[in-house]
Amino acid sequence: MDIAIPIFDGLTALDAIGPYEVLSRLPDARIHFLAAEAGPKRTENRMLTLIAERPLDDMRNPEVIVMPGGHGTRALMHDEQMLAWVRAAHETSRGPRRCAPARSCSGPGILDGLEATTHWALMDTLGRLGATPVNRRVVEQGKVITAAGVSSGIDMALTLAARIAGEDMARAIQLATGYDPEPPFDSGSTEKASPEILELARARS
Amino acid sequence: MDIAIPIFDGLTALDAIGPYEVLSRLPDARIHFLAAEAGPKRTENRMLTLIAERPLDDMRNPEVIVMPGGHGTRALMHDEQMLAWVRAAHETSRGPRRCAPARSCSGPGILDGLEATTHWALMDTLGRLGATPVNRRVVEQGKVITAAGVSSGIDMALTLAARIAGEDMARAIQLATGYDPEPPFDSGSTEKASPEILELARARS
Repeated sequence: MDIAIPIFDGLTALDAIGPYEVLSRLPDARIHFLAAEAGPKRTENRMLTLIAERPLDDMRNPEVIVMPGGHGTRALMHDEQMLAWVRAAHETSRGPRRCAPARSCSGPGILDGLEATTHWALMDTLGRLGATPVNRRVVEQGKVITAAGVSSGIDMALTLAARIAGEDMARAIQLATGYDPEPPFDSGSTEKASPEILELARARS
Repeated sequence: MDIAIPIFDGLTALDAIGPYEVLSRLPDARIHFLAAEAGPKRTENRMLTLIAERPLDDMRNPEVIVMPGGHGTRALMHDEQMLAWVRAAHETSRGPRRCAPARSCSGPGILDGLEATTHWALMDTLGRLGATPVNRRVVEQGKVITAAGVSSGIDMALTLAARIAGEDMARAIQLATGYDPEPPFDSGSTEKASPEILELARARS
């Protein structure tokens, strides 16, 4: 099973690496980091560089696409090559898809008429994309799965792993990756954080 | 504040990227991906390449070291250059340190006499390193923090962020990264998984 993760300058690394760490443990799965132009891609803070091993055109029919987010998605919305690739791959593929944040999917209209989620600081963009915003961590709509920001891709990927290979395999991957979270605080969502924390968090999102 | 993340062939990506995603949001923090020899480093499954931007020798006194794990740590235990760097940086630095898995720290004897944790499949290595194994997700021992496998680095990094910049900032980073986990299953630790799931997980660890 070919799983494509398109990357680009300005991505949020954990958006890509959380799902990669889960899905790469599926039997017979192969993760491919792709970009319009293969080569080094820097994260939004420019502190980390990931390599896109192959160009998008090398893989027109992956079974799963994991679309990461990040400030770089603003430019991506105007990248005709990426948008055309996502549109085509979405139409011909059979497996589940995932886009996060929603912005990454807007050009192709993939979210049109669907319920969707994204990072809390971007929820107001969903309506403009034709989607109905839903304040949940992972939203499944047929073959499109959206997830809230950054760390939520791990939860999304475990859900996806169960759909692909069954719940036992997904549970085994949860154990292999030691995903038994114990956050030292309980401020992970806007409902749980104080207004002061929310303000501090906006500047770091 | 300079935060060093040494990387190497055969690393587990999420071990590095989870903490990176948290710690890079600290005020005035700068994350540096280093290696004995700068350049591309492949993960243990060879599906992803990260770039080490600078050689270890460029940064002898980082304030924090985050040491990722992965099958490549077996070779690391015999890498005199890396071990000497970790030993020297550990001695001269003032801030907190973290090593996971413990194997990465064994050469320098950093864990000798301390309580420590690591990935469940490697817990029996801790005794051989002079450490007392503790079955917890994050273990703080002065300036050494150890964490269990793969995804636990996110919890570790939030704990570390609070020590560096205070609890409000750590809470804001938790919110910025949307770390409000909702695993779809409850098999993230050996106590919670069935024997069948445990067997399946061993092959994927």
